[in-house]
Amino acid sequence: MLKQYLLTPGPTPVPERIMLAMARPIVHHRMPAFTTSFNEAAEGLKWLFQTKQPVLMLAGSGTLAMEAAVVNTMKKGDKALCVVGGKFGERWRNICKAYGIEFVELTVEWGKAVDPELVKKALDADDKITAVFSQANESSTGVRHPVEAIAKLTASRERVINVVDAVSALGAFDLPMDQAGFDVLITGSQKALMLPPGQAYIALSDKAWARTESADLPRFYSDLKRERKAQAGGETAWTPAVTLTVGLVEALRMIKEEGLQECFARHAKLAKATRAAALALGCTLFAPDAPSPTVTAVNGPGGLDTGKLVKQLRDKYGVSITGGQDAVKGKIFRVAHLGYFDTFDILTSVTAIEMALNDLGVKVTRGAGTAAAEAVLEAGPNAK
Amino acid sequence: MLKQYLLTPGPTPVPERIMLAMARPIVHHRMPAFTTSFNEAAEGLKWLFQTKQPVLMLAGSGTLAMEAAVVNTMKKGDKALCVVGGKFGERWRNICKAYGIEFVELTVEWGKAVDPELVKKALDADDKITAVFSQANESSTGVRHPVEAIAKLTASRERVINVVDAVSALGAFDLPMDQAGFDVLITGSQKALMLPPGQAYIALSDKAWARTESADLPRFYSDLKRERKAQAGGETAWTPAVTLTVGLVEALRMIKEEGLQECFARHAKLAKATRAAALALGCTLFAPDAPSPTVTAVNGPGGLDTGKLVKQLRDKYGVSITGGQDAVKGKIFRVAHLGYFDTFDILTSVTAIEMALNDLGVKVTRGAGTAAAEAVLEAGPNAK
Repeated sequence: MLKQYLLTPGPTPVPERIMLAMARPIVHHRMPAFTTSFNEAAEGLKWLFQTKQPVLMLAGSGTLAMEAAVVNTMKKGDKALCVVGGKFGERWRNICKAYGIEFVELTVEWGKAVDPELVKKALDADDKITAVFSQANESSTGVRHPVEAIAKLTASRERVINVVDAVSALGAFDLPMDQAGFDVLITGSQKALMLPPGQAYIALSDKAWARTESADLPRFYSDLKRERKAQAGGETAWTPAVTLTVGLVEALRMIKEEGLQECFARHAKLAKATRAAALALGCTLFAPDAPSPTVTAVNGPGGLDTGKLVKQLRDKYGVSITGGQDAVKGKIFRVAHLGYFDTFDILTSVTAIEMALNDLGVKVTRGAGTAAAEAVLEAGPNAK
Repeated sequence: MLKQYLLTPGPTPVPERIMLAMARPIVHHRMPAFTTSFNEAAEGLKWLFQTKQPVLMLAGSGTLAMEAAVVNTMKKGDKALCVVGGKFGERWRNICKAYGIEFVELTVEWGKAVDPELVKKALDADDKITAVFSQANESSTGVRHPVEAIAKLTASRERVINVVDAVSALGAFDLPMDQAGFDVLITGSQKALMLPPGQAYIALSDKAWARTESADLPRFYSDLKRERKAQAGGETAWTPAVTLTVGLVEALRMIKEEGLQECFARHAKLAKATRAAALALGCTLFAPDAPSPTVTAVNGPGGLDTGKLVKQLRDKYGVSITGGQDAVKGKIFRVAHLGYFDTFDILTSVTAIEMALNDLGVKVTRGAGTAAAEAVLEAGPNAK
């Protein structure tokens, strides 16, 4: 028996309470029993997004919502400014390319946050740009981007919207849509919302909704105007992911019971403890200047191939974390603290890493990472 | 307490065995524990589709797979022939319209099957037509279309493919992809596969795959070439619906244990029993000439508003069936026999309908429908 610990930044662990809710007998998506759940979920999402706008539920993964953001707000001749500093930034660029939308790529070194001054310069330099696409959290590098600053830049530009992929962010740290002025805000089910993957969520500001009137890219399954109309009536345009919607009700209740600010504080504390542990083990952080509250990227100590660490953790200890992808493959490992994570999930990751590093010949002081993490965590997971 | 019976043609009832499989702790979609499930599901789908081609799994509902069929096989200037005899036929036309694909609409009276001779005439009359889009089963009207005959017509035409929406059909009656020569075959999770909605499946023939090379409609989330490449390696291009994939493994095991032909025979028998019961109650069938093996559409007896029947069944008896939509709203009711249905599901529907009709003042002979159904069913659900 090797007990399994899924400690990845998505899918994140699904609480028993949610799994049990989803295991209840299926209901029909055009019948009252479902409508009640749907409406509670829709209201809860508005609360989570901190918006007065409807938050639309789509059956699909986060990439579907990203595509929906592009095809519903852009028109031929528009130009996109894509902030590209990791795998998910690249996805914005690739979606624009697939739909023939010209784009300017604002390349950011992996592990760094985008400098809002460079966004401003790019916008000033090219008045054909009508949208800035970025990530609130680039989970491939463990970087938090200053999307609030970007939103300020676009707010004063009538023809420019900001589009924020918050798939690995929303619900884990504060992204108040209306107050910050995000025009399009996206998240997915399998991150802070603690659900299995398969449902995505998207909200648009009035400014972005106005753009859907002139948007001329082809769309059908991801037509947000059609979804808005249907969902205002308690239905979806196409068959929804019924079990995930039922699970979402439970997830939102759990976050409400905890409190939104308390939930953010928990994520911040777990992130801080993880960073402290990594440093205490002699590792360096991959993104020290703009560390993510949801996933901590750590450089492999002494040039260790982090793929070996990930494999050792999984095969010997049953602990699943993630390594790096593409440019940072083998160079970083990523410790998650996103969604249904608490004190002992972090300590499990830290102790497992201490053991696995020693297994691999990277001599670290046993207990050093643990001690540093404990010092941060001992005030209790929800202390301010 | 009002015990609930979901007896609709989608979502269909989910077996306990599948619900329990899906309630197991979530696994990560890029890790070996998932790959094992994924590969078993992929092999099982090939068996279910009766094809040598890969069957791709998409995170989304059936409409996503329908859109994928259009955008991956059509190019600007191509013309589509859409068989439109119900809600789902209309969807083919609407997707073509959304993507700027010119189409010829072959209108079929609701409740009738398409005449293959008319498909042949339409193809002969317009050599710009490069694809015929139809439904194996039009669930809005309870009609089975002769897709095998359509496939024969396109087989001899080098430039024309046939695209079959088998969402409410595949796994319930025999649609052997390779043998029949279907070029694109589609289904969804929440029908014969007995899963919750949220995953769709699509397979392409060599002829259809060749078309993906010249297809020039924009696509990203539904790019099938990208999916084929990823799924050949045991992964999906985008985050998959993990729990549904795990449930799919269990669903396919159940169908294998029953046997594919036995599964088809069960559906045929349940359909026959349902029709016999409806007739014995003095009702007429909406689609007597081409009745669906998965859902039986029945005309409201004596001009009864069938919306009232559906409501009575649900509110007084806890039995959920579906009424008619659009052109046949209030005119028909639909009794499902699709997926996890057996003898006593049919008898529950029939007895509930007998009672509800009497409640609503439509005097039917109590037990008459039941007796007719029992006569068909008594040989046992799986008898030939």
